[in-house]
Amino acid sequence: MDYRRFFEDAIDQLHAEKRYRVFANLERIVGKFPRALWRSAEDTREITVWCSNDYLGMGQHPKVIAAMHDASSRMGSGAGGTRNISGNNHPLVELEAELADLHDKEAGLVFTSGFVSNEASISTIARLLPNCLIFSDELNHASMIEGVKRSGAEKRIFRHNDLAHLEELLKAAGRERAKLIVFESVYSMDGDIAPIDAIADLAEKYNAMTYIDEVHAVGMYGERGGGITDREGLSHRIDIIEGTLAKAFGTLGGYITGPKSVIDAVRSYAPGFIFTTALPPVIAAAATESIRHLKVSQEERRLHQQQAQLTKHVLAQANLPVMPSETHIVPVHVGDPELCKKASDRLLEKHGIYIQPINYPTVPRGTERLRITPTPFHSNELIVELKDALVEVWTALGIPFSTGEATPVEASDRVVTLAVSKAGG
Amino acid sequence: MDYRRFFEDAIDQLHAEKRYRVFANLERIVGKFPRALWRSAEDTREITVWCSNDYLGMGQHPKVIAAMHDASSRMGSGAGGTRNISGNNHPLVELEAELADLHDKEAGLVFTSGFVSNEASISTIARLLPNCLIFSDELNHASMIEGVKRSGAEKRIFRHNDLAHLEELLKAAGRERAKLIVFESVYSMDGDIAPIDAIADLAEKYNAMTYIDEVHAVGMYGERGGGITDREGLSHRIDIIEGTLAKAFGTLGGYITGPKSVIDAVRSYAPGFIFTTALPPVIAAAATESIRHLKVSQEERRLHQQQAQLTKHVLAQANLPVMPSETHIVPVHVGDPELCKKASDRLLEKHGIYIQPINYPTVPRGTERLRITPTPFHSNELIVELKDALVEVWTALGIPFSTGEATPVEASDRVVTLAVSKAGG
Repeated sequence: MDYRRFFEDAIDQLHAEKRYRVFANLERIVGKFPRALWRSAEDTREITVWCSNDYLGMGQHPKVIAAMHDASSRMGSGAGGTRNISGNNHPLVELEAELADLHDKEAGLVFTSGFVSNEASISTIARLLPNCLIFSDELNHASMIEGVKRSGAEKRIFRHNDLAHLEELLKAAGRERAKLIVFESVYSMDGDIAPIDAIADLAEKYNAMTYIDEVHAVGMYGERGGGITDREGLSHRIDIIEGTLAKAFGTLGGYITGPKSVIDAVRSYAPGFIFTTALPPVIAAAATESIRHLKVSQEERRLHQQQAQLTKHVLAQANLPVMPSETHIVPVHVGDPELCKKASDRLLEKHGIYIQPINYPTVPRGTERLRITPTPFHSNELIVELKDALVEVWTALGIPFSTGEATPVEASDRVVTLAVSKAGG
Repeated sequence: MDYRRFFEDAIDQLHAEKRYRVFANLERIVGKFPRALWRSAEDTREITVWCSNDYLGMGQHPKVIAAMHDASSRMGSGAGGTRNISGNNHPLVELEAELADLHDKEAGLVFTSGFVSNEASISTIARLLPNCLIFSDELNHASMIEGVKRSGAEKRIFRHNDLAHLEELLKAAGRERAKLIVFESVYSMDGDIAPIDAIADLAEKYNAMTYIDEVHAVGMYGERGGGITDREGLSHRIDIIEGTLAKAFGTLGGYITGPKSVIDAVRSYAPGFIFTTALPPVIAAAATESIRHLKVSQEERRLHQQQAQLTKHVLAQANLPVMPSETHIVPVHVGDPELCKKASDRLLEKHGIYIQPINYPTVPRGTERLRITPTPFHSNELIVELKDALVEVWTALGIPFSTGEATPVEASDRVVTLAVSKAGG
């Protein structure tokens, strides 16, 4: 066994399959979001980021940064231990109370990442429940799939958002057996939304627990930013609501909220929680500030939806193949991994626009895409600039434009008028 | 199935077994380390933390906090995406280069926690290697055990630090089969050190890869703080060196360093790395500052060892049952879970001294202990105060004192003289 050779071959294999990933070296600029410095092999240039998950630009909010400064000045840079051994800092306790309140739940629990929150919570809940059967949407995120796998529990995969299929599987399991339905509210690659109310109905009918991942919705939907369950008044119908602090809230970490007993069980039994250093007070304080701001301010959400709709409209008007999406996520179809990578490279190098290509295995083969995430800070001018750049790239690389047969993307008249007038100016 | 009832019972069970954990609500105080505010049900008091893993107090270092302020002012509070999708920030790239240099390796890779770094790296390396056989020390940390489990690879557990047993197992596996030896340098509950050189000899003899966890050593040992492998000049003999940014470096996150091809493989194949938001630039910048400081400054390491030795000596002189430890970790034997918890409670409530009890399953039953971690900031006066408090608690609760038969704990004459003179003052 030649270990070095073996790993070198594994990397060569990725290159050969065009799956080798190069991470863009970025430095975001506070006050100029979504602009960032990009360090290439040759030089450092200022570019526009169009694929950030800092969906509302809260990562540069003065109140959030001030909270960080204050907490680090007073409490230092780290937590100094696990939650159990000296690391349980007061800002983290406050953050968990804030999260429980956000989702109208009894308790909250914070993890160092959204990935760990899904993996640790799903696996722990399903492992504790005797002979648990898990029902998992086929498009669930990798972290949920890991949680399901690690639970060791039996599972049934239901077709994406397919209520009839889910009911069929639930029915077959019977009322008495412990059952856990795991699904997302907003699916991040297509931007579609789960039928939460109907899934809750089925859960009630067949006596199943429910676990929803709201990472691509918290902060952005609902009167208080509690996600799609908040917007639709459904928080009380779902047992566990999982979310992230690392996207719309602009910081780091993941969390679950739910009944005190369930949260307490995960807290007490999940190795990925127990044996990990607590999130630093600086991160907790910044996250709390961000959540509190978005609980009352509607402006970020309004502008976010407005600019996302406008982006979809402007791109569709130029016959760019915008894929249908009910949310702020704007996927543009390419359909070929190499073209997708080339489009991304050309956008960055020629136009100073950064959009990471999304290829298999993140999305099915043949549906490779550019996944665009407009924020409140992507101005009308930037949207028009994006459209022009995409048209140039599509033309230069020979990527198919839309045939115009797809349903036109909706946008309110007001927004469109705004766009047109601005674009002309 | 009554879900709520089920989870309530699970929690009641923990209470019944006296295993229910209550996290102390703490607020550390910059400039007064190891002092912290403790919020109990009744009031808020200032106490002394004696069980922090911020081993060198770097979490309050002015340079580290300044780096945090600077990075958050310039780059904001979060990374805004995964490493692959817009989250790869420049300070993180710099941090990885710094870590590779620290351990004299070709490359480094940062994770959101030490737990994830072990779990993701061990499982990915062992899963990639065809028919890999893992050799794991029986006292390895929970995160390493999870990594071994998740790899799906066959495993052999060798008796703690037992070279003969390890060799026997390696021999039986044969030279050709892919083999990975995973172990720690400093075992955190007993404070003993692995025979790294001899393990490397065996690895060479039987052609095995080696993976060492240095989380309780980095920053604290070696001329540049590269851990025990640095101190003993053995970095080049170990393939993968894993460490943490959340203990002696005072921030958050974990990492691995090693040959470029192996690091690249983990980077490319580990779901726990790929699908996680990157560490924020503030954390990366603070960690880099801390590492750079400890690469050149010997003062923290010198004082750390001095105060740890002094603590062992002063406690042993008072016939407190200090368990043998080769490192900065000072375990004091209690031997009963309830007494251990009571001792911890009494120390906190009566003496304002916080030391979390360490019970099963973290340590074997019958070896329950208080695990004390002196830092450079635990003054001679604090050490004497600790000794007096422990003696009071041991007496009040009837915990056995040392019979004096154990080997006396070593301390240099200079240190002891210092202690005695200070203690008298």
